[in-house]
Amino acid sequence: MTCRTATAVPAASSLPFGHWLVSRGQRTEQALERVLPPATAHPMQLHEAMRYAVLGGGKRVRPLLVHAAGEALGAPAGALDCAACAVELVHAYSLVHDDLPCMDDDVLRRGRPTVHVRYGEALAMLVGDALQALAFEVLAAAPGHGASAAASAAMVAELARAAGSAGMAGGQAIDLASVGAALGREALEDMHRRKTGALLRASVRLGALCAPHAAATTAEARAYRTQALDGYADAIGLAFQVVDDILDVEGDATTLGKTAGKDAQRSKPTYVSALGLEAARRLAGQLREQAHAAIAPLGEAARRLGDLADLIVLRKA
Amino acid sequence: MTCRTATAVPAASSLPFGHWLVSRGQRTEQALERVLPPATAHPMQLHEAMRYAVLGGGKRVRPLLVHAAGEALGAPAGALDCAACAVELVHAYSLVHDDLPCMDDDVLRRGRPTVHVRYGEALAMLVGDALQALAFEVLAAAPGHGASAAASAAMVAELARAAGSAGMAGGQAIDLASVGAALGREALEDMHRRKTGALLRASVRLGALCAPHAAATTAEARAYRTQALDGYADAIGLAFQVVDDILDVEGDATTLGKTAGKDAQRSKPTYVSALGLEAARRLAGQLREQAHAAIAPLGEAARRLGDLADLIVLRKA
Repeated sequence: MTCRTATAVPAASSLPFGHWLVSRGQRTEQALERVLPPATAHPMQLHEAMRYAVLGGGKRVRPLLVHAAGEALGAPAGALDCAACAVELVHAYSLVHDDLPCMDDDVLRRGRPTVHVRYGEALAMLVGDALQALAFEVLAAAPGHGASAAASAAMVAELARAAGSAGMAGGQAIDLASVGAALGREALEDMHRRKTGALLRASVRLGALCAPHAAATTAEARAYRTQALDGYADAIGLAFQVVDDILDVEGDATTLGKTAGKDAQRSKPTYVSALGLEAARRLAGQLREQAHAAIAPLGEAARRLGDLADLIVLRKA
Repeated sequence: MTCRTATAVPAASSLPFGHWLVSRGQRTEQALERVLPPATAHPMQLHEAMRYAVLGGGKRVRPLLVHAAGEALGAPAGALDCAACAVELVHAYSLVHDDLPCMDDDVLRRGRPTVHVRYGEALAMLVGDALQALAFEVLAAAPGHGASAAASAAMVAELARAAGSAGMAGGQAIDLASVGAALGREALEDMHRRKTGALLRASVRLGALCAPHAAATTAEARAYRTQALDGYADAIGLAFQVVDDILDVEGDATTLGKTAGKDAQRSKPTYVSALGLEAARRLAGQLREQAHAAIAPLGEAARRLGDLADLIVLRKA
């Protein structure tokens, strides 16, 4: 198991944001390509379907957050590759399971047939199960890539909590139970904090956990840093969902790469249905400002996090 | 997250096997009870269903293997509780997913309605997903219970491989593809080595990983020990499946707590269909002897492993 890429990593601050995005995106693709079993390995159909689910698509927002947070604190690139792969594998598994007929019953994802449409329901379930296991296997390999064993254990704990019943899976369960219900804004936020927010927050935290504890760093300074990053993660986590809800109303399937307007069709509560379109747009803007304010104390080193907050709020798909 | 139990642990060798079984079984129940979120915690239905899937049933073979292997090498009880919970959570999640309509479509498990019958298909999928995440969260907590951070990372890697596409999920995928096919003995063994063998082997290995590397132990001695335990695990892994296949033919639903005769009904290849009933019985007996022979070099300390090999082969359910 190796997450290491052969490419050199130019310092974050020396690149324009667009170049940084491409560079870290390519790094992530290469690392994912390497940690996924080859499609020629037995059992081949499962491995082919796992690769189909993960490779060749996706905005890779979570891996970018890992890299941005880690680079802000001087984390080694190899460990960040492991963490970036792990969060993306969990994200990819959740999409495969979400798309199943017993859940959202979606046939289109990233402009292609969903995994269960292409490979059948049973195999799609196994794809998700195996991708989740792989995510943790990759994190366990981080000590070979510049993270300490203690940091690896902390990352496993963090990712497991974010994926589990208090996080993503819990948010899904609340979502299931809320179809047709009129959720208030507080209940809606609770649901999204778990369903999408937890993994986005974990991405930021995993990036930070890859950074070595410099001897000069006091416990106080670390707590201060954690607070800044958590404040940022909370803001972008909600912003991400608010923008998703806006795009579900405004977008079309070609841009989104998935079926548009499905939330309304299923009477799912969204920020648009709870607040109205205009107020939802204002909220997204406020959350963007909140994200920038949270990381201001970290200075120029955290600029990629700021850039990503802009990207998340201003995206069109 | 704590796996620690309040009960004192009498030395393994001072107890008759029946008492040891009860003692370690109770310890495992208490530890599982403690690591599972309470049914009163939000989201309640998911937590209730997770507890339904895990508690109050099951032979706990895998946790017993963890304890037996760990006690043979002097591992701390708290770390063994973590490892025992983790393997049982993975096993429980796999049963929930296996029972789903898109897989085996089973309605009865441990004498009760399966999770999807009781809670619906979508929630059952989330139960499995959340239980897998919880297993890794529990392993990440092992350093607080007497295991080193390096041992925790090694356990995560081991369990992830055993659960993933090269292990359990891979075996399931092969199983799916083999319905109606006439598998030879070699292909059958490959399937079962992944589907059930990998997690049984991981149970033995996790128990061993909980033991501290005594300074006096040479790398040679450790390799010798690993070889003995792996030989044992391979033998009981196959024996477990052979006996399962025999019981599926001989047993009835009341004793098994699940629907009997389902393999034949679905034209699934089994050891009984491949070898015949008598030859399958002889094979189980040979594997039992092989298991005993493998651990003979470990002496009296490994007696619980020998006892468990007998239990696995001689069980009636």
